[in-house]
Amino acid sequence: MEPKTLDQLAQHVGGKVIGDGSITIKSASTLERAGSEDITFLTNRKYTNQLKTTKAGAVVVGSQIESNSALLIADDPYYAFRQIVVLLHGHRQHKKTGISKNAFVADSAEIGKDTDIHNFVTIEENVTIGSGCVLYPGVFIGKDTTIGDGCIIYPNVVVYDKCTIGSRVILQANATIGEDGFGFATHNGCHHKIPHIGSVIIEDDVEIGSNAAIERGTIDDTIIGQGCKIGDQVVIGHGTQLGPHCLLVAQVGIAGSAKLGHHCVAGGQAGIVGHINIGDLVTIAAQGAVINDIPNGSTLMGSPAIDANKAKRAYALIEYLPEMRKSIRKLEKKLAAKEKS
Amino acid sequence: MEPKTLDQLAQHVGGKVIGDGSITIKSASTLERAGSEDITFLTNRKYTNQLKTTKAGAVVVGSQIESNSALLIADDPYYAFRQIVVLLHGHRQHKKTGISKNAFVADSAEIGKDTDIHNFVTIEENVTIGSGCVLYPGVFIGKDTTIGDGCIIYPNVVVYDKCTIGSRVILQANATIGEDGFGFATHNGCHHKIPHIGSVIIEDDVEIGSNAAIERGTIDDTIIGQGCKIGDQVVIGHGTQLGPHCLLVAQVGIAGSAKLGHHCVAGGQAGIVGHINIGDLVTIAAQGAVINDIPNGSTLMGSPAIDANKAKRAYALIEYLPEMRKSIRKLEKKLAAKEKS
Amino acid sequence: MEPKTLDQLAQHVGGKVIGDGSITIKSASTLERAGSEDITFLTNRKYTNQLKTTKAGAVVVGSQIESNSALLIADDPYYAFRQIVVLLHGHRQHKKTGISKNAFVADSAEIGKDTDIHNFVTIEENVTIGSGCVLYPGVFIGKDTTIGDGCIIYPNVVVYDKCTIGSRVILQANATIGEDGFGFATHNGCHHKIPHIGSVIIEDDVEIGSNAAIERGTIDDTIIGQGCKIGDQVVIGHGTQLGPHCLLVAQVGIAGSAKLGHHCVAGGQAGIVGHINIGDLVTIAAQGAVINDIPNGSTLMGSPAIDANKAKRAYALIEYLPEMRKSIRKLEKKLAAKEKS
Repeated sequence: MEPKTLDQLAQHVGGKVIGDGSITIKSASTLERAGSEDITFLTNRKYTNQLKTTKAGAVVVGSQIESNSALLIADDPYYAFRQIVVLLHGHRQHKKTGISKNAFVADSAEIGKDTDIHNFVTIEENVTIGSGCVLYPGVFIGKDTTIGDGCIIYPNVVVYDKCTIGSRVILQANATIGEDGFGFATHNGCHHKIPHIGSVIIEDDVEIGSNAAIERGTIDDTIIGQGCKIGDQVVIGHGTQLGPHCLLVAQVGIAGSAKLGHHCVAGGQAGIVGHINIGDLVTIAAQGAVINDIPNGSTLMGSPAIDANKAKRAYALIEYLPEMRKSIRKLEKKLAAKEKS
Repeated sequence: MEPKTLDQLAQHVGGKVIGDGSITIKSASTLERAGSEDITFLTNRKYTNQLKTTKAGAVVVGSQIESNSALLIADDPYYAFRQIVVLLHGHRQHKKTGISKNAFVADSAEIGKDTDIHNFVTIEENVTIGSGCVLYPGVFIGKDTTIGDGCIIYPNVVVYDKCTIGSRVILQANATIGEDGFGFATHNGCHHKIPHIGSVIIEDDVEIGSNAAIERGTIDDTIIGQGCKIGDQVVIGHGTQLGPHCLLVAQVGIAGSAKLGHHCVAGGQAGIVGHINIGDLVTIAAQGAVINDIPNGSTLMGSPAIDANKAKRAYALIEYLPEMRKSIRKLEKKLAAKEKS
Repeated sequence: MEPKTLDQLAQHVGGKVIGDGSITIKSASTLERAGSEDITFLTNRKYTNQLKTTKAGAVVVGSQIESNSALLIADDPYYAFRQIVVLLHGHRQHKKTGISKNAFVADSAEIGKDTDIHNFVTIEENVTIGSGCVLYPGVFIGKDTTIGDGCIIYPNVVVYDKCTIGSRVILQANATIGEDGFGFATHNGCHHKIPHIGSVIIEDDVEIGSNAAIERGTIDDTIIGQGCKIGDQVVIGHGTQLGPHCLLVAQVGIAGSAKLGHHCVAGGQAGIVGHINIGDLVTIAAQGAVINDIPNGSTLMGSPAIDANKAKRAYALIEYLPEMRKSIRKLEKKLAAKEKS
């Protein structure tokens, strides 16, 4: 992409320049590595010290601060920096391959225009794929599945049959969508597989990380709401439904038939049991374990998860348990001695 | 599949109808979504309220209960419902492809009759596959591996060399079987790879979830006992042996050389260290961490895992630690004051 | 491989024989399964009892011990045993396939000599691969990626564009390298994808487990230091940097922009938050959660992780919380009664 002046960048993001706005900015970088033609950002106070040593041409910040670099002040500095990265570097470009002769595309499949289907892709019967999609090598799309426009499906992703995927969905490599859930009826000591007649619905603008697994519903559908972003190696159980714009960081696991509202956030390795209702705007810390219904706006931490403020104080005291126990014993002895005397 | 009357379904599962047994049932559904030609079930008391509002034609239950829908009473209602889902909907059908010309099948491989091998599958030297199997696109079977009859191997599953897989085994997409375990001998600060001369043996009727990873043994074999069901993204360490009919929910991790008896259950994200013996019928709650030998029939919870009943009471008290500590300090002060006076 | 005498094995590893050094040893085995022509080892005291019953021809040990089998005493018995396994069994052999006609290799890609590229592999534009590598079926290498010599890339591994992989790197099946990290700028309730212009650098002699996922950096690079061994289903967040010779056991998750020194070890399912500095030689127990900077040489345990010795005592007391609380209440009552009287 083309270099810009700092002024041009400020205009692009609706920000304000402190310093020389005429300098040329060619790329985005980190505080540590940036040079005079790079722009970087500061949103995490941890890195404030690096403002003194950075050689960056400019730094995107939220408010004025002392620095040798020029500043680009923006209301939402991380979003402004993101806009600049898109402007200077763009998103990943995908080569135009058309529909490869080395892919298998069923006669009954409908493929939209400008959709690229790479080698070794399999598109089964009655699949519908919109326009402007990219299906990288090794992708498998099961029969009767529908995919919208502008989707990017990275190598070796597997989408089972009868799934519905919206537009502008991104599936990172080796993700699995629509596999049978963990559903067995145990009878006389044997676990009998329940056919999974539900499906997976992935709404628009969702991104799903590498090696993630989204189970199809047993009899209900699994739903990933619009704009949800799901990290690597997340598992979503059968019939679980996420409201729009949830963020699930890597290795989160949600059991089946749970319902989450909109804008929920779960930190890495958090777990949520099945058959519970989690409200809107609920945040769960990393490794947290949610086992009950949760009202809107809660912030939770711990295993089992409790209110995060409580949890911060409480879990920090685990290390004092030996001391506490000793104190209790001492008190008991003293009191016993007192009672004797 | 064909619709049935409720009486026919009751007969099929050995149950009893309360209400009009002549109604037609076409499909299985949830309490929430079912209509007059659907059957649903109630096994989780959480949903009892929905019996009042459901529009289901019939509900499978364990005992009589007030409802506007007809009831099908069965001794094991979830299993009965499962039998009905199989009857009404059947398991996933697989198209007959024969052995694709776009698959690679080594000359020395033996493939049983009615086994379908899709495009882009690789079957290495000396592999034996039984009859009636399906190998979906992108599957890799390493040399000298043996697979029984009626197995379903979903897209992009990788089975390494010299593994033994029984009959009616289901491997969900992107699972890995028989990769080298995490075995290194550290010497002078470098970690030296140990050749993994052990293998993986998967017995009959096992199902393994998407993106799961079953390591081959270092010198012993990893064994997944008959009828075990293993969820998505489970890792089984090298040389670990599961007895028959275990259930491991998603994201469970078991380190190497552990031994589990029959009918063990591990909840999501539970962990088990290596080189321990876990008896029969042991249940481990989600996120539990088992670090010692465990006798038959135990139910465990917590990290580190302890008896579940104890754990329920104990872990629930973590949030009272600040209060407890304050109480102890208060007591100490009071007693000190008393002693002074 | 050829059988050896016990004396030959001892010479090979610089060890000392106690017993008959002329016996023939054909293979390595476990204490439990070994026969008279097998060698096994004892490094875990748990198995000391099996020395009395083993039928092994010889046992590698660290110091003299009573046994019916001949002993091979070595300074570092596990490493010695590893040397013997390599000598007797060797590492996995890979068939020579050359570059398959059923692979896609871009014209601009450079492939070193003796590198085997199996069927259904995709090598994109401007990729450079050294000599003596093996790329198994279904592997995808994105454009501008560089791979050194002697690498083994197992089936269905995906390496995105612009990654740098050293020599003698082993990537187990279904691993993903260089996918976009979990990077979104949230603005007005929507999560906007940040282009990931950073990359992944994997240094020499690294091994990465099955279904693991190594995210590319947002603007910085993700670095896996020389000789690191990374287990199955590990996630490394964008921009995280591991020093040389770290060991990350299965299902570990490290968030973005963390820095680890050399020779760090993380047990299964451990988690590390982003933007922290972890020193050299730091050990984190299984399921531990590290949330702060950690000095060199620390050993940590628990969630949140604290000093392991403290944690062992402290976490073991969680089960006494109900008892402790009862004691506190009793003390309060007694003291209150005393004060009244």
